Amino acid sequence: MSQLLRVQNFNVSLDGIGAGDDQSLERPFGHVDPGDLFAWAGATASWPNRTDPGGSRGLDDYFTRDFAHNIGAEIMGRNKFGPQRGPWKDYEWKGWWGEEPPFHTPVFVMTHHLRPSFTLSDTTFHFTDADPATVLEQAREAAQGKDVRLGGGATVIREFLDADLVDTMHIAVSPIELGSGVRLWESPKELTDRFHLEIVPSPSGVTHHLFWRK
Amino acid sequence: MSQLLRVQNFNVSLDGIGAGDDQSLERPFGHVDPGDLFAWAGATASWPNRTDPGGSRGLDDYFTRDFAHNIGAEIMGRNKFGPQRGPWKDYEWKGWWGEEPPFHTPVFVMTHHLRPSFTLSDTTFHFTDADPATVLEQAREAAQGKDVRLGGGATVIREFLDADLVDTMHIAVSPIELGSGVRLWESPKELTDRFHLEIVPSPSGVTHHLFWRK
Repeated sequence: MSQLLRVQNFNVSLDGIGAGDDQSLERPFGHVDPGDLFAWAGATASWPNRTDPGGSRGLDDYFTRDFAHNIGAEIMGRNKFGPQRGPWKDYEWKGWWGEEPPFHTPVFVMTHHLRPSFTLSDTTFHFTDADPATVLEQAREAAQGKDVRLGGGATVIREFLDADLVDTMHIAVSPIELGSGVRLWESPKELTDRFHLEIVPSPSGVTHHLFWRK
Repeated sequence: MSQLLRVQNFNVSLDGIGAGDDQSLERPFGHVDPGDLFAWAGATASWPNRTDPGGSRGLDDYFTRDFAHNIGAEIMGRNKFGPQRGPWKDYEWKGWWGEEPPFHTPVFVMTHHLRPSFTLSDTTFHFTDADPATVLEQAREAAQGKDVRLGGGATVIREFLDADLVDTMHIAVSPIELGSGVRLWESPKELTDRFHLEIVPSPSGVTHHLFWRK
């Protein structure tokens, strides 16, 4: 356990949905308004996209400012990287995040459709079609002794949970119901055979779920 | 506010006591058993003195692992540095922490009894008899753009609160009553005219109090 695999600040609805159906360039979260899920994080002082000096410095801020703590690499699914499906038509798409992606480490994008690695600022994106255990091995080596963040979406987190590769998990549950979409769980209790679970309500209305291995 | 002055992981009893009376070499917290106040932190995976690989990774761990986040210097009172009173007889005392102090930054010890600076591992201790605002100025310069931690004890925190120099404060309130000793407050409500306050109960029994400036 010297290099943990950590889910950090992943957001789902009360009914366990992490993103909507019908993702597109215009709607990265499909029919779901990401503001409904992320509002708690955007209100904090440490939110990476914050441009004004304000923001709260209470409980929620501990979670946003822990996002990069001792993280040396990230693993994400292709749908977190972009809305395209199937083979790449070209390599112009470089993620949703512009010239300064918020990762600042190597990122491993899991996809059956490979393309060359590229670097934007201090983030390098690699593309891999390996199984979860192999991708984790690659990411751990790239992380140079630090932990690896499992960035999502929900489908990728499920794959790593099913392979029993996840060490800690912070899931922020927002007080909305979405009905359909990409589901992380039916209930967090599905995981309590393998994980300790602390449920911490925040004054912002979100409920932080903290899991770590038994 | 680009360089905050932050109190991190300071511990008090239900009745606001941070340390006991009659501090000595054998009893750094006087009549108070520090285990009663610090047990929540010692149980976490990120506790700096942990020697085994276990420990919890729930809410309390966020606080222990945030201790050094973006901190570039610490300010502490003389009683946190040592049990001596009055002029130094010699300079053999180098703090409670052995050869590897847990600060890893410059530390400014406030005392009327000056002595030369010295370095242990990656911590350098400076001694100053300046007023709080001046000490903060020195510490900010030493912190090179990072935040400054106000390490306590309670008397020093009170001095900086009275001078309105504190930006954020995390106080862990343990479920014990101590009756007498060095007091931080009669009630946390004394501070809510100037600070936002979130009160977050932890499953460990401690109650985290998070303050930030209005």
